[in-house]
Amino acid sequence: MAGRIELIALEGLPLIAPGDDLAALIREALARAELVLRDGDVLVLAQKIVSKAEGRLVRLDGVEPSAEAKALATQVGKDPRLVELILRESVRVVRAGPNVLIVEHRLGLTMANAGIDQSNVEPGCALLLPENPDASAARLRAQLAPEGLRFGVVINDSFGRPWRRGTTGVAIGAAGLPALVDRRGEADLFGRPLQVTMIALADEIAASASLLMGPAAEGLPAVLLRGLDWGAPESPASSLIRPPKEDLFR
Amino acid sequence: MAGRIELIALEGLPLIAPGDDLAALIREALARAELVLRDGDVLVLAQKIVSKAEGRLVRLDGVEPSAEAKALATQVGKDPRLVELILRESVRVVRAGPNVLIVEHRLGLTMANAGIDQSNVEPGCALLLPENPDASAARLRAQLAPEGLRFGVVINDSFGRPWRRGTTGVAIGAAGLPALVDRRGEADLFGRPLQVTMIALADEIAASASLLMGPAAEGLPAVLLRGLDWGAPESPASSLIRPPKEDLFR
Repeated sequence: MAGRIELIALEGLPLIAPGDDLAALIREALARAELVLRDGDVLVLAQKIVSKAEGRLVRLDGVEPSAEAKALATQVGKDPRLVELILRESVRVVRAGPNVLIVEHRLGLTMANAGIDQSNVEPGCALLLPENPDASAARLRAQLAPEGLRFGVVINDSFGRPWRRGTTGVAIGAAGLPALVDRRGEADLFGRPLQVTMIALADEIAASASLLMGPAAEGLPAVLLRGLDWGAPESPASSLIRPPKEDLFR
Repeated sequence: MAGRIELIALEGLPLIAPGDDLAALIREALARAELVLRDGDVLVLAQKIVSKAEGRLVRLDGVEPSAEAKALATQVGKDPRLVELILRESVRVVRAGPNVLIVEHRLGLTMANAGIDQSNVEPGCALLLPENPDASAARLRAQLAPEGLRFGVVINDSFGRPWRRGTTGVAIGAAGLPALVDRRGEADLFGRPLQVTMIALADEIAASASLLMGPAAEGLPAVLLRGLDWGAPESPASSLIRPPKEDLFR
């Protein structure tokens, strides 16, 4: 591991609209900051701007809620059209209560509201997660990095957690780095094999970038993390999803 | 929010023993690195070195397992003396299965093995969490920081999570900063009130420092985070614990 990491928020990105060339806008922001990508760099992008560029914005007034969505909307106290979108994006309702709707997203993520969000989104609209965030990360990585660069892209989102208050940044997409690091077989300081053998590296990266992004009107949806040293093989963010048979909290 | 954060691992800390003056050792490590504490600095310390300095090391051969501990040890496949220690530190077993024992710690933390750990610990011993990690953080903060400095201390540990594989750094103690930031009432880019209103700032700090600490033999249990801008009032890590009445996953 390197002894120093730097996190740099990219300034001056415009509001992203459907069809925008996100890689080109990032390239311009990097150039403005006089940053040239180097080995050990990770670009962290807020889910919101990736979703917007990919045209995942839905107008609520075109959504017809089903009977199931209407009933659930009453239970949780949300707009039935929003609940309809949440159900369409999900495979299972995990928990529902006043102001809380936690589902298993079709991507396998267990999360509130299927990641559908109305903050920092045009009024009357809702924003869905990217169709395939790992693929989005891989595409952006290919567009941004010269071949052979040890460079990663992480797409983060804010997740709540059981048992703990507040949200943290979590990786929903990743490319070019090990989202999950398996350290089985390595020894501790006393030569004893490690018990905790898996590290959610991409989640720690996502959380660190969230320190600079902020959730409100900061408008800093892209952060460059510099100086990370990873030796493990590449794995996507989907490798962070716990398989149902290992899951004690379904 | 500031546009840049730096994370610096403090090198050359010795193996910590019971009774060691941790603040003095940190002060020496800062001096060796020619680092002078400044506004916006956060010192993140691995739980392990705080626990060791506080003498929370227990010899397993002096532990007499109860009948309950023996039965549970068979179920989960762990040392009955370790399970006895876990039960003594806990108020409730949350989930038990092969190689998994998740409990509610007396501090309110829901975590594996009550945070008791044998890696990087002398053979034949187990290490308990600090008696009161928020108080430990506050004490270290008072010992390290000149009066009036906007300086935080976070004690982190590695937690597994439901639904997601791998561990991330989580804050079990904090002082001098808002562990939980309440942003209710702030507006988004379109002037709409924010829906996600609470940020687990100390958990994001803990996770970012874990990127440098590593879990194995790196021996980098102290990281200085530099450049964070927090406006919210101070709150301890205990404020991150979700009250049972809000908890849908008990």
